[in-house]
Amino acid sequence: MAKRLGGGVLLLQNAPSIEGFAAVGGRMEGKGPLAAEFDELNEDTTFGEKSWEKAESRMQKNAVSRALAKSNTAPGEVDIIFAGDLLNQCTGSTYGLRELEIPFAGLYGACSTMAESLCMASLFVEAGFANRAVAVTSSHFCSAERQFRFPLEYGGQRPLTAQWTATASGAVIVGNSGKPPFVRAAAIGKISDPGITDAANMGAAMAPAAAMTITEYFSRTGKSPAEFDRIFTGDLGAVGTEILLKLLKQNSLDLTGIHQDCGLLLFDRQTQDVHAGGSGCGCSASVLCAHILPRVRSGEWQNVLFAATGALMSPTLVQQGESIPGICHLVHLSHQNGKEAC
Amino acid sequence: MAKRLGGGVLLLQNAPSIEGFAAVGGRMEGKGPLAAEFDELNEDTTFGEKSWEKAESRMQKNAVSRALAKSNTAPGEVDIIFAGDLLNQCTGSTYGLRELEIPFAGLYGACSTMAESLCMASLFVEAGFANRAVAVTSSHFCSAERQFRFPLEYGGQRPLTAQWTATASGAVIVGNSGKPPFVRAAAIGKISDPGITDAANMGAAMAPAAAMTITEYFSRTGKSPAEFDRIFTGDLGAVGTEILLKLLKQNSLDLTGIHQDCGLLLFDRQTQDVHAGGSGCGCSASVLCAHILPRVRSGEWQNVLFAATGALMSPTLVQQGESIPGICHLVHLSHQNGKEAC
Repeated sequence: MAKRLGGGVLLLQNAPSIEGFAAVGGRMEGKGPLAAEFDELNEDTTFGEKSWEKAESRMQKNAVSRALAKSNTAPGEVDIIFAGDLLNQCTGSTYGLRELEIPFAGLYGACSTMAESLCMASLFVEAGFANRAVAVTSSHFCSAERQFRFPLEYGGQRPLTAQWTATASGAVIVGNSGKPPFVRAAAIGKISDPGITDAANMGAAMAPAAAMTITEYFSRTGKSPAEFDRIFTGDLGAVGTEILLKLLKQNSLDLTGIHQDCGLLLFDRQTQDVHAGGSGCGCSASVLCAHILPRVRSGEWQNVLFAATGALMSPTLVQQGESIPGICHLVHLSHQNGKEAC
Repeated sequence: MAKRLGGGVLLLQNAPSIEGFAAVGGRMEGKGPLAAEFDELNEDTTFGEKSWEKAESRMQKNAVSRALAKSNTAPGEVDIIFAGDLLNQCTGSTYGLRELEIPFAGLYGACSTMAESLCMASLFVEAGFANRAVAVTSSHFCSAERQFRFPLEYGGQRPLTAQWTATASGAVIVGNSGKPPFVRAAAIGKISDPGITDAANMGAAMAPAAAMTITEYFSRTGKSPAEFDRIFTGDLGAVGTEILLKLLKQNSLDLTGIHQDCGLLLFDRQTQDVHAGGSGCGCSASVLCAHILPRVRSGEWQNVLFAATGALMSPTLVQQGESIPGICHLVHLSHQNGKEAC
């Protein structure tokens, strides 16, 4: 049974295991530093579909199909799927997964969705509510731009604080295989609103939430950053990362040399025109599945924190003068099941 | 530990208890048959705020505050809150609840959100992940119309299959008080797409999902409808209810005299101009909190199924010619904790 430490932090004692994972990306991701680690890359941003929204659904379907195939799992062997995305009414997920006939729990955590869905899937397996659970999310640059900012045809200028929404999806299958990677802890974050009203500066809106959840995790568990090979945030980008590290130092947490941000890993800011870095649900999801999980599986990294961040804004509320609340959920991924330590 | 029956159906063995609940409604709800049962009714659809979106956030905040107050619970005593709504990016929930400083798990289940959030809250308490969890959702007629259909100022004609989005919110607090009502089972539904492309006929789009989840529940548990005082669906309205009852008869399930639909209870279709009935996340949520839970608490009803339905559509995808997938999640509410029967 999981141990409840308070502040949304739960230690998992039954060592839910990540049995399969897959990352799907688009053209920009295929030119980025992690290209070789993706399971599927598509030069055509429509993924053969007639709209960008349908392309996003296709990506999510492909990511789940590949993760299932890689772990020799049939859809009928999955008890529940946790999914969500940035599109209005989360249609990337609902339309992408409707044919699977798997019990479906829709989530909305903006760009934190990979961590939120992975928390839920792991907790369902931990409790025996599911023998096998899927966590999946996605984002698409073109569908996100026209929904949250301007249609691409408008050719709007993007400020340097802006981030580039990843065209990508990541899917993870959690089960009881007993093989690494294991999910050892989950932390459900609180909403934090630092008062940012600029929808082109999401990193600043999300950094305080990341600082809060990471601080909560360390303070509740008594662990220290030195116990981890890497600590990943979701998609703070260059602006948000700087704020995060400052805030954590104020809390006496020094992540120098350990912290990396998925938004700064997915693209090369020198050669790719992504301004402050990558963002979108698919950013942290694909970096998790392409780059992080293989290294925890192999043992190259023994312990990793994955803290995906989300900006819980809507264009409507920003137009009404509202600020942008942020959130951050976290999972502890480990090569060891932790049973020896108990 | 919960018993996993397959098909998304889980029997809860630790008898999570509903410790508090509250329903908030607007002007139309205040003229409806359930008016006297609401905790708060507001003649002013803005709830004192400057926009309908902010009004919806206010409703959700008020519903949670009242449910907490009614059960003598401080926000700090809540381990997690599960919330979602119909607004883009679920801002009814995120803006309404951001000040509470409670770990927040955002959901998207369209009008099924009350059942989805109540499933999650109950399962978290069942597993010991939370000592106390909140489930809440809302909808607002004016914000939903301008987002999903036409701005009110346009004065669009509504066909007779259309339903009236409730301006309402319901919040439930699940804990371990050991007092009724108890949550005895949860069923997470699958997505079902009957091919409906008319966004003004949600009842028809959702009815097959309701039939599927209700059939799954009875087939997995071996129970019969006669064991229940009432079986509620979320917001199928007149059109969807007729389809549901037909589909269930094909599955040899006769709910005559037991079935009621929250969309047909909230408003009086004879005197209120709501066409096929009420709808929206707030419809089933407020009927649950105003009308159903008090009767299960008192023992007037011993056993009730609450099956909230959602249409997982988006205006963008409907404009692209897509059909509307439906979903239905279910909870078994009981005056007895079920321990004797084990």
